[in-house]
Amino acid sequence: VKVAIQGERGAFSDLAAQSLLPRARIVPLPTFADIFAALERRSVHRALVPIENTLAGSVGENYDRLRRSPAVIVAETVLRVQHNLIAAPGTRRRDLRRVLSHPVALQQCLRFLQARPALRAEPFYDTAGSVKHIVAERMRDTAAIASTLAARIYGGRILAREIEDDKQNFTRFFLLSLEPRWSRDANKISVVFNTRNVPGALFKCLSVFALREISLSRIESRPVPGTPWEYSFYVDFSGRLKEPNTENALRHLAEITDFMRILGFYRAAKTKNMPKNQ
Amino acid sequence: VKVAIQGERGAFSDLAAQSLLPRARIVPLPTFADIFAALERRSVHRALVPIENTLAGSVGENYDRLRRSPAVIVAETVLRVQHNLIAAPGTRRRDLRRVLSHPVALQQCLRFLQARPALRAEPFYDTAGSVKHIVAERMRDTAAIASTLAARIYGGRILAREIEDDKQNFTRFFLLSLEPRWSRDANKISVVFNTRNVPGALFKCLSVFALREISLSRIESRPVPGTPWEYSFYVDFSGRLKEPNTENALRHLAEITDFMRILGFYRAAKTKNMPKNQ
Repeated sequence: VKVAIQGERGAFSDLAAQSLLPRARIVPLPTFADIFAALERRSVHRALVPIENTLAGSVGENYDRLRRSPAVIVAETVLRVQHNLIAAPGTRRRDLRRVLSHPVALQQCLRFLQARPALRAEPFYDTAGSVKHIVAERMRDTAAIASTLAARIYGGRILAREIEDDKQNFTRFFLLSLEPRWSRDANKISVVFNTRNVPGALFKCLSVFALREISLSRIESRPVPGTPWEYSFYVDFSGRLKEPNTENALRHLAEITDFMRILGFYRAAKTKNMPKNQ
Repeated sequence: VKVAIQGERGAFSDLAAQSLLPRARIVPLPTFADIFAALERRSVHRALVPIENTLAGSVGENYDRLRRSPAVIVAETVLRVQHNLIAAPGTRRRDLRRVLSHPVALQQCLRFLQARPALRAEPFYDTAGSVKHIVAERMRDTAAIASTLAARIYGGRILAREIEDDKQNFTRFFLLSLEPRWSRDANKISVVFNTRNVPGALFKCLSVFALREISLSRIESRPVPGTPWEYSFYVDFSGRLKEPNTENALRHLAEITDFMRILGFYRAAKTKNMPKNQ
């Protein structure tokens, strides 16, 4: 099975893909647009995309692509994001002057960097790519910030572990497929819908779930391109397709919205305090 | 009155600030963090921040800053985003090889650029800054993408107007102040709240408005840092503070949430089809 990920080998998406499909062949591609395109023309079997981070929030562009794509969500996973200071072998800590990484990773290690004013942070296109670069160029004064997997893949040496400011740093990923073959233990459903332009429209849509004691774990809104100030809503909830309670809720939702689509049906990832009831 | 904006003079924030406060002195600063800080230490009287774009979606970091800041929203405005191809005086169209602009602006002019494969798009830190740069360096083979105001300020020549792919491209801005002095014709309220961890929590919160026939124009969620999978909700609705219907709704909302704060009370911007009822 080939799985497309965005970024270089050793990126957090690589770790997430391996946690869901340990024996898959990882296909790294530069952009999210590339991995949706690879899946849609069937040059890979699956695509893995980050959808939200507990510090940075939703990855809006992936919500938008998901709505437009024929792909469906067949699994989710949640990864604790741990950043490490990594250097080329032989680099001495006292020689370091620069640190390269993706801007979000640099931002998430701000306190670590502020305590080391001799290190100048410089944005790079990718976390794992920054390790690849400093090792390939045998840089002596430059370190990278990335996963331990990136250190292992590119032969970097870890100088400091878990340097992220906030340990409550998790990213949630969706595994996408063109075939809606649901897992036998699937217990969570994602849908997208557009509300009608009537007062209390969103309240009515949520009543579909509340009346049936169905718990939402997430609601996200995204603008509808071409129609300013209209929004699509993305909702995740506990339930099983083919169960009467769920089927009734979805039929009711379709009845009162202009557009509704099931985006996926999958096993909820196990995390400390997820899902929150909404 | 001094108003802090993010970006260079001639940026879209500059246009938005001038539409709200035509005689203000504009104070351009590099980052959103800088403009919140300038307002909070009272080195400016107001700050202007973009909060959502009808194509790109919400500016999540400004929602987060707003929740943490003592500042309140005293006005909103909506700006149609129009991009233009701008060059240094004397540059001939046939000599152009490169176009600089902010990555979001380049993305929003994709069709224009795809029809001109001889032009290589290169990301720059700011739309208006790209005009300043090409004019100052008297570049002969490089153009910029920015507002007509940026062309005027830096002496650039407009080679093509309104080159954005989608004309339904609007950005909504908030004007912030440390003093909660509300405009006499204010008719729109923004609040933020955290739901309790009970089933149907968001549905119950929205009932506060629906039961009183109050129309929501916007709902946005953002993660609560340090508490994975919990979210703050931002809601905009039609109403006036001190009116019984509004006061009752807000009292009811405070009663059923863990945290609730009024973020602002201001005159709704006039736009074609805004607000949508939710």
